[in-house]
Amino acid sequence: MSAKILVAQGGGPTAVINQSLVGVVLEARRQAGVTAVYGARHGVRGIINEDFVDLGQETSHNLELVAGTPAAALGSTRDKPDAAYCHKIFTVLQAHGITHFFYIGGNDSSDTVRIVAEEAAAANYPLRCIHIPKTIDNDLVGNDHTPGFASAARFVVQAFAGANLDNAALPGVYVGVVMGRHAGFLTAASSLAKKFEDDGPHLIYVPERVFDIDKFRADVKATYDKYGRCVIAVSEGIHDADGTPILSRLAGDLERDAHGNVQLSGTGALADLLCEEIKKTGIKRVRGDTFGYLQRSFVGCVSDVDQREAREVGEKAVQFAFHGKDNGSVAIKRVGYYSVNYELIPLATVAGKTRHMEDEFIAASGTDVTDAFRLYLRPLLGSNLPDAYRLRPNAVAKVLNKG
Amino acid sequence: MSAKILVAQGGGPTAVINQSLVGVVLEARRQAGVTAVYGARHGVRGIINEDFVDLGQETSHNLELVAGTPAAALGSTRDKPDAAYCHKIFTVLQAHGITHFFYIGGNDSSDTVRIVAEEAAAANYPLRCIHIPKTIDNDLVGNDHTPGFASAARFVVQAFAGANLDNAALPGVYVGVVMGRHAGFLTAASSLAKKFEDDGPHLIYVPERVFDIDKFRADVKATYDKYGRCVIAVSEGIHDADGTPILSRLAGDLERDAHGNVQLSGTGALADLLCEEIKKTGIKRVRGDTFGYLQRSFVGCVSDVDQREAREVGEKAVQFAFHGKDNGSVAIKRVGYYSVNYELIPLATVAGKTRHMEDEFIAASGTDVTDAFRLYLRPLLGSNLPDAYRLRPNAVAKVLNKG
Repeated sequence: MSAKILVAQGGGPTAVINQSLVGVVLEARRQAGVTAVYGARHGVRGIINEDFVDLGQETSHNLELVAGTPAAALGSTRDKPDAAYCHKIFTVLQAHGITHFFYIGGNDSSDTVRIVAEEAAAANYPLRCIHIPKTIDNDLVGNDHTPGFASAARFVVQAFAGANLDNAALPGVYVGVVMGRHAGFLTAASSLAKKFEDDGPHLIYVPERVFDIDKFRADVKATYDKYGRCVIAVSEGIHDADGTPILSRLAGDLERDAHGNVQLSGTGALADLLCEEIKKTGIKRVRGDTFGYLQRSFVGCVSDVDQREAREVGEKAVQFAFHGKDNGSVAIKRVGYYSVNYELIPLATVAGKTRHMEDEFIAASGTDVTDAFRLYLRPLLGSNLPDAYRLRPNAVAKVLNKG
Repeated sequence: MSAKILVAQGGGPTAVINQSLVGVVLEARRQAGVTAVYGARHGVRGIINEDFVDLGQETSHNLELVAGTPAAALGSTRDKPDAAYCHKIFTVLQAHGITHFFYIGGNDSSDTVRIVAEEAAAANYPLRCIHIPKTIDNDLVGNDHTPGFASAARFVVQAFAGANLDNAALPGVYVGVVMGRHAGFLTAASSLAKKFEDDGPHLIYVPERVFDIDKFRADVKATYDKYGRCVIAVSEGIHDADGTPILSRLAGDLERDAHGNVQLSGTGALADLLCEEIKKTGIKRVRGDTFGYLQRSFVGCVSDVDQREAREVGEKAVQFAFHGKDNGSVAIKRVGYYSVNYELIPLATVAGKTRHMEDEFIAASGTDVTDAFRLYLRPLLGSNLPDAYRLRPNAVAKVLNKG
């Protein structure tokens, strides 16, 4: 029996999504009966446009180099297919005689895979459909964590470790805005940047908790009074009790995307607006950074654990397809501290659902994480995480002002 | 003859300024006759407050670990001492019997060293004063380049290499705003992120050239029409023909620092305002990032060449002080491709002066750099610079839409 493979990448790029791509390609190329391994350019959009590349003509050596390169080597898309769009996808797959469809992406992508699988079943067309997890937001249900998250988390940790040192050298208030519209995992990762008791981030705001601007100012003031400085990690998705994004409340008219969502990334507005609020407390030196696209695309900041797992979910996807009989989504399950296994879970389990930070991961204060979260995250960050050192206090006696 | 050493760090922290500190400390500790090696907390402010730590009681092992940590381990300051402030500095040095004063910083810091040296000379007090170069802006005259620049440049290169990949995966316009009020070296470094002809950054705007907003929009539009996307590197210090910062022109009331300068860093406003300008051309997906403090403080992105040289300028400062008879500023001179020597140049040569990008480094278009600049920068970035790979084109024939 001959097989034709199609693989595509969807949604926001990550540091390791190409590992998953190459995991699929190399594993597919070694399966008996596989006559073609195609890649669609720019996700589902490339499928409906029949914009395919033949990955059977790519050298193994170059594939390995691409695997180590961030972003999405096939290109990606923000298209969120509806039923009609999915029907077009199916029509193209059928026309090209595709027997196995692999889509690497987040919860929207898994929903696309689910609908295409239903189209194929309804048409009685033999098509194996596998979703491969990917998202820096870590918001896929059924997974201990998702490929891409750990490397972005590592970037956030290294960024806050440095911002904390910089803020200690030139004291003031520093606000760092982190990606994550609905899930606070990436913002919470900043907590791993703390080494000493007085290190920042001193305050962490995730979208799983209601953000109150008055309490925020009071939190910052209290921290500043205690340490003479304050480092703050804020999720771009913070919102008030009604669910209105704080960015919308503080700012005026804002760009909305095809999904009707306010544009949160690619703008420094939230950090700037929060800085203005902080200045109302009378604190002078207030600085805000928005980590923006750097946190998902920066070349050279990657977790080796993330790389390995991203590669494996791609490989396992092909193995599940060729050794099993079900469609599904590859899920990462934690076993031991630290190791993982992979399972194929039903597409409906993952599709279109959003995981949030579990309550046990958020401290009662609402502005910190728990040890359970620290323990959860640490192994994902991988090896050779940079460490920060400080001089030990050996004060010299004053001569002029002995008082 | 006994000697007492004081070392301090001033201005914006860098990834390698602690290498210079440790270079001074370890080299000073091994000099015959040295009875004390003190560090001032938070630069000149720590001096006038007699806030000293005894670095003779610090272990060599911990000093080595601190050397590898970014920011300023002693703390820094933005104070820009006037004559009265410098007199206070001298009074404290005299009271503590300091014989050798080392100040690690930029052109403002070298001016402080110059004035303090004059105070000492006027009082006939034997004080050796050495300025040790440091600045991510690379704007010190008399130096081939300055410690701290190369690591920040490496961050900018890795950031744009990733941003380019991300932008290729999800096409649109991307604006990255880079530090550098007067000198465009750091923004120009983004050019080293280009590997293929169609890679970004496609446009680079430095403060050495007048920024025209209409030409900017036209440049972006033309690039977008050619490549279907556009990646832009912009210096925070871009200004119009009158020298007015573009941020001031596009925005309203802005915070000014003690030097009367508009606050350019720690705000995402310039990127956001440029994005608004670009949207006027009709381009839909426009995203802006401001690299902010990450580019000077990020833990784990450092040039090994920069580390080595930052260490050596600290060591050489002590050797010039103990083996020579002049005050001065340690300067890096390039010899061969690639190696450096160190010279002690007069404080007045460096003090308060600003180096700009040389004309031979800027392309005639005004939006790119020359090969001379690429050749100049590459060795500074150090070894193991991450590289980006792409799939090779092997298009599959269309089945449905053969036209």
